[in-house]
Formats: sequence, C-alpha cells, structure tokens
Amino acid sequence: MNVKLSPVSGSVVAAQGFEAAGVFCDIKRLGTGAGSEKGAKRDLALIVSDRPASVAGMFTTNQICAAPVKVCLPRVKQGRAQAIVVNSGNANACTGKQGLKDALAMASFAEQALRLPRGTALVGSTGRIGLPLPMDNVRAGIVEAAVELGGTTEHARHAAEAIMTSDTRRKEVAVEFRLSGKTVRLGGICKGAGMIQPGMSANGSRPPARPLHATMLCFLTTDAAVSQRALQAALSEAVAGSFNRITVDGDMSTNDTVLLLANGAAGNARLELAGRASSKRNQDFHTFQAGLSHVCLELAKMIVRDGEGVSRLVTVRLNGAKTAEQAEAAARAVANSALVKTSWHGGDPNWGRIIDALGYSAATVQEDKVDLGYSAPGSRKIIWSLKRGQPTRVTFKELCAAVAPKEFDLHIQLNLGRCGTIIYSADLTEEYVAFNKGDVSDPSSLGG
Amino acid sequence: MNVKLSPVSGSVVAAQGFEAAGVFCDIKRLGTGAGSEKGAKRDLALIVSDRPASVAGMFTTNQICAAPVKVCLPRVKQGRAQAIVVNSGNANACTGKQGLKDALAMASFAEQALRLPRGTALVGSTGRIGLPLPMDNVRAGIVEAAVELGGTTEHARHAAEAIMTSDTRRKEVAVEFRLSGKTVRLGGICKGAGMIQPGMSANGSRPPARPLHATMLCFLTTDAAVSQRALQAALSEAVAGSFNRITVDGDMSTNDTVLLLANGAAGNARLELAGRASSKRNQDFHTFQAGLSHVCLELAKMIVRDGEGVSRLVTVRLNGAKTAEQAEAAARAVANSALVKTSWHGGDPNWGRIIDALGYSAATVQEDKVDLGYSAPGSRKIIWSLKRGQPTRVTFKELCAAVAPKEFDLHIQLNLGRCGTIIYSADLTEEYVAFNKGDVSDPSSLGG
Repeated sequence: MNVKLSPVSGSVVAAQGFEAAGVFCDIKRLGTGAGSEKGAKRDLALIVSDRPASVAGMFTTNQICAAPVKVCLPRVKQGRAQAIVVNSGNANACTGKQGLKDALAMASFAEQALRLPRGTALVGSTGRIGLPLPMDNVRAGIVEAAVELGGTTEHARHAAEAIMTSDTRRKEVAVEFRLSGKTVRLGGICKGAGMIQPGMSANGSRPPARPLHATMLCFLTTDAAVSQRALQAALSEAVAGSFNRITVDGDMSTNDTVLLLANGAAGNARLELAGRASSKRNQDFHTFQAGLSHVCLELAKMIVRDGEGVSRLVTVRLNGAKTAEQAEAAARAVANSALVKTSWHGGDPNWGRIIDALGYSAATVQEDKVDLGYSAPGSRKIIWSLKRGQPTRVTFKELCAAVAPKEFDLHIQLNLGRCGTIIYSADLTEEYVAFNKGDVSDPSSLGG
Repeated sequence: MNVKLSPVSGSVVAAQGFEAAGVFCDIKRLGTGAGSEKGAKRDLALIVSDRPASVAGMFTTNQICAAPVKVCLPRVKQGRAQAIVVNSGNANACTGKQGLKDALAMASFAEQALRLPRGTALVGSTGRIGLPLPMDNVRAGIVEAAVELGGTTEHARHAAEAIMTSDTRRKEVAVEFRLSGKTVRLGGICKGAGMIQPGMSANGSRPPARPLHATMLCFLTTDAAVSQRALQAALSEAVAGSFNRITVDGDMSTNDTVLLLANGAAGNARLELAGRASSKRNQDFHTFQAGLSHVCLELAKMIVRDGEGVSRLVTVRLNGAKTAEQAEAAARAVANSALVKTSWHGGDPNWGRIIDALGYSAATVQEDKVDLGYSAPGSRKIIWSLKRGQPTRVTFKELCAAVAPKEFDLHIQLNLGRCGTIIYSADLTEEYVAFNKGDVSDPSSLGG
C-alpha cells in the first residue's frame, strides 16, 4: 500500500487544536532565577489540546521506574487526557514517596493553570536520578508556560528545546495525510542521547522477549479521531518498529515514555481497530498507522544520530535466524558490542568482531553459514565481505569505503531460518566516554 | 581450612619437570625475519613436561570457536598430554578447513621437534581473526623454541611474553604448598586485555546459565600427581571462580582457553576426586584446589588490571538475589553497563546508573529494597550510599573518596533472597576506544 505523507512544520502543534510552550524555570537550581532569561536553556514544556483527546502510551520496562511513569500508567489506561507537562534537568526517579507526590502535584499544577478536570494531565521528567524536584520552580514554570501557550512553529520549537538534556539539537517531525477526504496531521517531538536502548510496553510489564534497554521521551499529537484501543494498538506497533529498535549505549532508562494524544479535530470518521470495521475504515487505519510509524521512526533515528558522542548511524539488518527472539538476540549482541562499536568509530570493516559477537549471542549461529555485507542506507546493492563464513574477494579498501560514510547498513544473513530484525545502532567514541565520565566537582551530575 | 601457599618464582617452570621457551618467528609477517632479533616481540611459546602429564582444559563457549580450540577439545578429553605450543599475532579463527589443518600441523611440528608421541601436544592461538597462519614461520619458531627450552625464570618469562597481544605486561604466578609431606608447585602464565568476558566450559558446550563472554589464554603447570577426573574437576571449579568472573568489555572471544598439565614429579599420593578417597586424601585435594583457585584468581585479576585502557578494577559483590542466575544477571548488567563503567572512570559515585542497570537486568529487583555501598578491596567496612533505595546521609565527598582508589569493591544487596556472586570488572576509558577503533591504514588490524 502506498501512503502519501507530506512533511509539514510545527511538530506538536501541526495538528489542529494543539498549543505548546517551553520555558525556563531553573529545575537544576542554577540560581539564575525563574523566567526565560536570555541564554538559559528552557526546561519545562507544556502541550495542550483544546478538547479532550484519546491517549495512548508506551513506558520503560525497567523495574526501577520513575514517578512520572507511575503517574501516567493509570491515566493512559483510563483512555482520555488533554495536556502533557514535562521537565528536563531532573528525572524524578528513585525519589520514593515524595517523588510520587511531586509528580502528581506537577500534573495538578498543570490542570489548575489550564482549568482542566483532575486527572487529565500527563507528566514526564528527564535528567538527574535521585534528587527531589524543586516544586516551587516547577509550579512557577507551569504558570508561565500556561500563559505563553501558542500554536506557532516557534511554540513547538520551544517545547522541543525544553525537553532536551544532553541532546545537541531539537528533534521535531510532522506529516499531513488524507483520511476519507479529510486532511489529518500528526507530529511529535522527542529527546534522548544517552542511556538509550528503550524496551517499552503499554503497561510497563515486560514484553515476551527479554528485556531491552534510554531516557528517551517522545510526545505526539494528532487531530485524527481515533478510538483509544485503536490508538494504543497503532502506537504499540509504531514503537515496536522505531524506539524499541534503537540503541546508543545499551542502557535502558528508568523514564522512557512515549505519549500520543488524538483529539479528533480533523473530523474524520473515527478510526477503530483494523478488522473490526469496514474495509474503507480499515484502509484509513492503515494510512494512520503508516503516518504514525513514519513519524516515530524519523524521531527514533534522530535520537541515534544525536547520541552522546555518536559519529555514525549503523542500521543492522539481520536475517535468516531460527526465531524472532534469536534474530533480536543476535542483532543486539552485534549492535551493543563495545568492540564492534569502536571499530565502526574507526571506519574499520572488522568482520572478526562481528562474527565473534554473533557467536556469543543467545542465538544459534553456524560459522560456515554466515554472510556479512554493507550497503548505503536502504540500498539493496550489498558489498559482501563474508560469504558462508569465508572472506570474499572484495578488497580491504573497498570494505573501508563501504563503512566510511556517516550512515550505512550492515547486512547479516545467518542462513538458518526465516526470521529477521532491524536495529538502529551507533558507534562508540572517545567523546561518549569523556561526556559520561562526569564532572565530580559537580555533585548535581549524579544520575543518568 | 587454612591452606598455606607460598609464592615462588618461575611460573610455568616452577614445578619440577617443566621447561619453557618463548621466541620470535614473525607470525605477523613484519618482515624483520625469523629469529629472536633485538626489539622484536616474541610470538611463539613452548611449554613441555619431561614426562606424560594429566591434562585438564576449559574452552570458550562462543559458537564461533577457533581451530586450536577444536584441536584441543578431543585431546584434553583423552586425558594425557606433554606439551603446549602457542602463538600470538594470529588467532587462527574463522579460517575454515585450512585453519584446522594448520592447528593440527602446529601440534605435529611440536611433537616432532620434541620427539613426543603423536597427539600429545596441545595448541593455542591469539591475535587477528580470519587470516591464515604463516606456517613456515610457525615451523621455524617451533624448531627454535625446542632448542631454547629451559627451566629458569627467564625461560618462563620469555614464554609469558610470547603469548601477549595488547597486554602491556607479563602475567605470571606460582605457589608452593605441601601435600602429604611432599612439596608441590603450581604456576601459570596468562594473557588478555580486550575481548574479555570469558564463559568457558570443559567441553565447549554452554553452561546452564546464559552464555557469558576475551581472548584470554592461560597455561598452568604443576608437579602434583592428580587423576585426570580430579584435575578437570579442580580446574572447572577454579575457572568458575576466576576467569569466568571477569569482564573488561563484555565481549567473549572465539579463542578463550585454559590448559593445566599435572606431571606427578612431586611424588605425592595421587589425588582423586574428593569424596572418593580417604579423608586425608580429601584434605589433600582441597589443598590442591585452594592452590589452583588462588593462582587462577591472581592471574584473572591481572587481566582486568591490564585490560585495554583500564584505569580501575572494581569488584562487584552482589548479594540477596532470588536465584544464582539472577545474581549473575544483575551483577553482569552493572559490570557491563557503558554508563556505569564510564562513571567509574570519572571517579563518580553515580548510584543512579547502577540502580538503572539493576532495573533492566533479567533479575528481579525492587527499588525500595536495594542497598548500595563501597569498601576498600576485601574490606567489610562498607560506606553505604543507598539503603532500601534511598540515599543515606553519607556526603557526596565521602562517596567520591570511596570510588577514587584504583581498586575498590562495590557492594549491592538486593534483599530479596540468599544468592550472590562476584564479578571483577573495569572502567571504560577514552583509551579503550582509541585503542580499539583501529588503524584502517593497516589491514592486518582486522579481527579481535
């Protein structure tokens, strides 16, 4: 099915009925005072729909999960929400009962400032672990953000900036498509650079495959009319193929969250789960899924490209595994191997390290069956370095050229079965280590 | 039981009846010609017993296993051997049928040069993956080594040098102890610096716990008289508590090998498996086990200390897990987390990253039960940073002081059960990345 998606500006405010704001309220207590001072990085974002919206969410499966995740879980399950308030600079994780109280208070402040019913605001946090939120600052920030709300690209940009931590650039995407004659928009913002290997589920319970592992946050809005069940199904599918397929450093955060609000302002015939509706409506659902999956994948790849110290995005395309779980295990062993990642950094087509990682993975691998090759991103023109476990006649120079670009695909064919997977990974650089070894002179550097 | 172990010099030739040599034969084809030229690093080692010995071995559980491992497996099973020949600079891994032929030829050359019966020499290789062994050089090296064999500490030192790859220093240990009135010696050499997280078993089959992950090589000799079954049991136990408990980068090699020869020259009453013999003989077995375990642990820690770019050795002592497998999973998640390892490098007591890693591990963890603390190596004086998931009153300065030394212990108490484990880990440094990103201008840098 060919779905026409047109890029539009405005990310979270591209869809009708949504407004956003991003302000500085000194969550890190830098002492520069509240208010969006010149030069101070915004640290509190607000996203609001002008009417109640269906909501879907995906959350970290880390057993140590942050207070905002605990607050969002039941609210998303309830199915309706209207606002999202997010802070950066403090993760509100490992903060015990006080943390939970603070996350609830943060939601309440937003509801009060926006005059929304209780329980309709969702919360997100990212930053340092184990420190209490400075609630006076949070409250002041929310009040200011509520005043500054607006629907321009600049408003969306401020929100995208406010959720950044170690990110070096904003991450925004939005698209427009048609659903039964109506124009629908869907857009989002996200953040994440380190502690990135999300493994999210809709209810925080672990997926059947083994637990994966960021703080990454993503907030999506659409003016499509979608039932809550259809919205959750679509988001689960989109996240499974995007955020849950990326890894920067193999560490899964306590705060990973994706939230999607669908307010129905576009006036399309309400989407229901595929299979439960007419074929026309089914087609509409598929179109919506395609739009949502596209936006999530674009945002997810932005996270890898902007990963801490990252200089290369490598798409690991593994096929021929015996089972889906084995495909996953084999691809992640390669994508998370320190030796493979450092060789990518060096532009070194080191197949020995790749086959070594495959060999110690939980997947069944046979040395004399493995094919390894490289291509440009998405290209089917593959340069094979290894066929059936043996080096091909491709020269070392040619292989170096294949792994020299900032982005390339690594093709692995195990030739043992029919299961495959894709993992978006990154190299491991001196800059990653330098950034993360922290600055001990600054106690506030505690946490992820 | 208190076992008296006295350190002695000579490592692999400390025990009676053993001789060793280490020579340069240009395995990397540097073109400087054969012969131990001044300045050229030795790359071929020979260790020989003057009589047939019992043999035990432990080998990588990587499914992609190198040719020398494939040659050793059946020979060790047979139970008797008399010589070990090892090269560095080339792993003879992923070299197909030719590789297997070469490993067998290497053993044959040694047997011929030493006039030993066929099948009595064992082989080991470490270095680049995927390149054929230069057999003319190997043969010339073996002939020269056989001529240079001797029983002095210098001979042992040459052998220890010859097996080094990215190691910056030799790794040698030997001890002396008493068995039923006889003086027994046991010593060894090892190598390993990167691709270090061994998970070895006696037969290459995977252990019940999930596969772990170096090239590390270790060669041990003793003049104790030990039955083959008792020797294998003792070595399995010693490796489980030493080499299989270390990690530098989480990557398990295709070549990991530990070999132990016991030639009986000390004249002690032959040791049998504990429980099958008299209580006096049982005590002797325990003494032998204590000596072997000590030597293996000292050698294993040397590998971590000399790990690529390593600046800190951190002993992760995890307790209170529900099962042994969960203890293992939790401790390894922490010991292999890129974020935890970079914080160790920075001297940053970042408990947020540690609890995050525990939370995404396959072990059951409850935030409000976790205790985290630090001590000097082996000390019971623990400074707790976290009790029941909450920060203690210990100051940030005190915690920084606790993680500042080159070596410290990290204590994790999950408070959920009675199972525990110990993992010897290291920090992740810019130097590790710089070293491993390789030099693309040199095609011989291919491999692990």
